[in-house]
Amino acid sequence: MAFTEFRPLDDKSLLEYIKATPSLSSKIGNKFDALTIKEVGDGNLNFVYIVVGSSGSFVIKQALPYVRCIGESWPMTKERAYFEALALKEHGQLCPDHVPEVYHFDRTMSLIGMRYLEPPHIILRKGLIAGIKYPLLAEHMSEFMAKTLFYTSLLYRTTTEHKRNVAEFCGNVELCRLTEQVVFSDPYKVSKFNHWTSPYLDRDAEAVREDNTLKLEVAGLKSMFCERAQALIHGDLHTGSVMVTPNSTQVIDPEFAFYGPMGFDIGAFVGNLILAFFAQDGHAAEGNDRKEYKEWILRTIEETWTLFHQKFTALWHQHKDGSGEAYLPEIYNKPELQQLVQEKFMKDLFHDTLGFGAAKMIRRIVGVAHVEDFESIKDDSKRATCERQALELAKLLLKERRNFQAITEVVSAIRKLHA
Amino acid sequence: MAFTEFRPLDDKSLLEYIKATPSLSSKIGNKFDALTIKEVGDGNLNFVYIVVGSSGSFVIKQALPYVRCIGESWPMTKERAYFEALALKEHGQLCPDHVPEVYHFDRTMSLIGMRYLEPPHIILRKGLIAGIKYPLLAEHMSEFMAKTLFYTSLLYRTTTEHKRNVAEFCGNVELCRLTEQVVFSDPYKVSKFNHWTSPYLDRDAEAVREDNTLKLEVAGLKSMFCERAQALIHGDLHTGSVMVTPNSTQVIDPEFAFYGPMGFDIGAFVGNLILAFFAQDGHAAEGNDRKEYKEWILRTIEETWTLFHQKFTALWHQHKDGSGEAYLPEIYNKPELQQLVQEKFMKDLFHDTLGFGAAKMIRRIVGVAHVEDFESIKDDSKRATCERQALELAKLLLKERRNFQAITEVVSAIRKLHA
Repeated sequence: MAFTEFRPLDDKSLLEYIKATPSLSSKIGNKFDALTIKEVGDGNLNFVYIVVGSSGSFVIKQALPYVRCIGESWPMTKERAYFEALALKEHGQLCPDHVPEVYHFDRTMSLIGMRYLEPPHIILRKGLIAGIKYPLLAEHMSEFMAKTLFYTSLLYRTTTEHKRNVAEFCGNVELCRLTEQVVFSDPYKVSKFNHWTSPYLDRDAEAVREDNTLKLEVAGLKSMFCERAQALIHGDLHTGSVMVTPNSTQVIDPEFAFYGPMGFDIGAFVGNLILAFFAQDGHAAEGNDRKEYKEWILRTIEETWTLFHQKFTALWHQHKDGSGEAYLPEIYNKPELQQLVQEKFMKDLFHDTLGFGAAKMIRRIVGVAHVEDFESIKDDSKRATCERQALELAKLLLKERRNFQAITEVVSAIRKLHA
Repeated sequence: MAFTEFRPLDDKSLLEYIKATPSLSSKIGNKFDALTIKEVGDGNLNFVYIVVGSSGSFVIKQALPYVRCIGESWPMTKERAYFEALALKEHGQLCPDHVPEVYHFDRTMSLIGMRYLEPPHIILRKGLIAGIKYPLLAEHMSEFMAKTLFYTSLLYRTTTEHKRNVAEFCGNVELCRLTEQVVFSDPYKVSKFNHWTSPYLDRDAEAVREDNTLKLEVAGLKSMFCERAQALIHGDLHTGSVMVTPNSTQVIDPEFAFYGPMGFDIGAFVGNLILAFFAQDGHAAEGNDRKEYKEWILRTIEETWTLFHQKFTALWHQHKDGSGEAYLPEIYNKPELQQLVQEKFMKDLFHDTLGFGAAKMIRRIVGVAHVEDFESIKDDSKRATCERQALELAKLLLKERRNFQAITEVVSAIRKLHA
C-alpha cells in the first residue's frame, strides 16, 4: 500500500503507514505486535493518534481539509500541517526544552509524527480548572516566548533572513484569516457563529457590538495582526496549547504560526490566564474556595511578564553586537541610548500584549469558540457572573491599555474588578 | 544572435535585441534605418536608452548587477528590474494617467521596454530647480498616491490577495536593504559613504549622530519600514522619480517597490518638495528672488496632502462595502464610527508621512546620495545655509511629528524656520 496522495487515516491504515515509514517504525523498535493506537483529538481542528509500543511511542497528528469541530461545511486547508511542522521545528531548535521533538513530516499526507508527551502531562487549561499549581510555569513560558520571539525578529536576524521567512509563512494565510474572523471580527458583529451565556449576557454581547471605542481599538490591533511581521509567532498560544507536569512545560499546536506581532502570543497566554482566574469562583467548592489558587494565578500572570521582560532584554543585551539589523551596534550601543530604545520597545510590546490579550478574552466569551474554564461551570448564572467580570476587564484593558505602565497595575485592575 | 543569458547591452547589441523582439520592433513600425539610440541614464543605478525611429519610440532600461553610480564594488541584484516591471504594471493598471506603459519585460536580461516620455517631459527635480510651476502637480501626485496606496492595501484587498503579493515582493529584499542603510542607518553613524557641505555642516552632521531622541525616532520608523506591509509602495518617490510637463505627471523608477508603510511614499514626495523649497534661496538671482515660486512650493505641499486626504478617503468611502478586509462593513459602516476610524487612520498616516519625509530629508543632507536641488548651488556657504534650515526642519518634524495636527501647521513651521 502506497501513500502517494492524501487520504484521511484510520487506526488500520495508520498502522500500515507506520510500517512503511522508517522514521516512525524505528521509534517503536519496529515492533508492531503490542502496539496500541488511540485517537484523542479533542481540539477544534485535527485528528490526533497516540501510538504506544513496548519499546517506544509517538503521536501522529493529521490535518483534514476542514475544521474538525464544525465539519466539512467549514473547509480549511490541510497545508496548515506544513506550517505547523515548520514552526515546531523552528521553535524546537530555539527552545528544545519546551517544544516536543518532530520525528517525521509528510506534506502529502498533512501528517506530523512527534514526541508523545506521556502522562502525567496534561493540557494546562485542564490543570488550571482542576486548581493545580505549576510553580515553573511562568519561568518556562517566559523562556519559550522570549527565545522564540527574540530569535525570529530583526533584533537577531538580518533583513534578508527575515523577509525570506516572512514570505514563506505568508502561505499560511487561511489560518490567519480564521483568526481575523474569530478574534477580530465575529465578536463585534451579529454572526451565526457567536454564542454566549444567554440570557444573562445578552446585553453584554450587544454592548460589545455597539461600543465604538472598542471597535476602533480592535481595528488597530487587527491591522497590526495583518500587516506587522515582527517575529515568528505561535499564533494560538492559549492555555490549551500548552502541556504540563509540575516539572515540564511543552508548547504544542503552532499551526497558526506566521510572522506577526509578538504581543499576540504573549497576550494570548496572559489573557487566558486571566480567564482562568475569573473562572475560579465557578470551580470553588465547599472546603475549597480557590482563594489561594487565585493568588497563584495572579502571581503567575505577574511573573510571566516580569520574567519575559527580563529574559527578552537579556537576549537583546547578549546579542547587541550580533547580526540583528533593527538596532545597529554602531548607532545604538551607547548605554543610555540603548536603555531608551529598550524601554520604548518593551513599553510598546506591553501595550500590544494587553490589547491582544483583551481581544482574545472577549472572543472567548461572546465569540464562536469558548474555553473549558467557563464552559465547565454548570450553573449558567454563576458562569455568567464570572464571564461578565472577565469581559469587563478585557474591555478596560483594550481601551485603556496605554495608561498601564506595569504588570502590577494590571493585577490591581483584575483584583478591583473581581472584588 | 540569441539573448538566452544575461549580458549588458550597448548601442549595437541593443539594436540586435530590438530586431529580435517583436513587442519592441513593432513599436517603431519595424523600421530600423533612421533609428537613433541614446544612452541617457543619469540615475544612480541603471542604464537607460532612448530609442526613436521615424514612426515610434520607446525607452529601454537595463539593470546591471551593481550600483551604477558607485561601480562594480557595490553589487546589487539585477532582479530589481523584475520588481520594477511588476510595480510599473500594477501602478499602470491602478493609475494609467500617471504611469508610463510597459511594452516589454525580459527577466533574463533584466530589461524593461516602456513608453518614452518625450519632450517637453523633464525630471520634476530639474523643473523645481529651474523655478517652473506645475499647476497640476499636487492634483496628479495625490491621485497617483491615493490610488496606488489605497488599492493595494487591506482597505481594498482581501488578506489572501494581500499576503500573496507581500510574499512576492519580499523577494525585492536587496533594494529594501539599500534603503535601510542609506536612509535609516548611515546618516546616524560614521560611514565612509556619508558626506556633507564641509566644514560648514561638520557640527550639524555630528549633532545628528549624537542625537538620542532622533535616533530613537528613526529606529521606530525603520522597524515600520521593515515590518509593516501596509500597501505596495513605490519605495523611492522623490522628485527625481517623477517626469513632468505642465499638463502631464508620470511616475517612474519603482525598482524599490515592496509592501511597506504608505507614509514612506507620501513622505518621500513631500520631504523632497520641502528640500526644493529650502534650496530656492540658492537659486535666487538678481531680478528673480524666487519669492513667488517659494509660495507656490508651499501651496503645492499643502495641496498634495489635502488632496491626497480627500481622494484617499473618497476611495475608502466608495469601496466601503467592497471586499477590503481591514474594516468589515457589518462592523464599521455606521457613519459616526466610520468617521472615527478614518480620522484615526489618516492622523496616523499623517504622522508617518512627516516622520518618513523628515528621514528622507536628513539623509539627503548628511548621507551618501544628495539632491541636485542643493548640489547645484555652487557657493558652499550659501548651500550650507539652505541645507541647515532644511535639516533643522527635518529634525523638528521627526521628533515632534505627533504634535502636528494639520498640513498647514507644517507649512507654518517651514515658514518660521526659513524666516
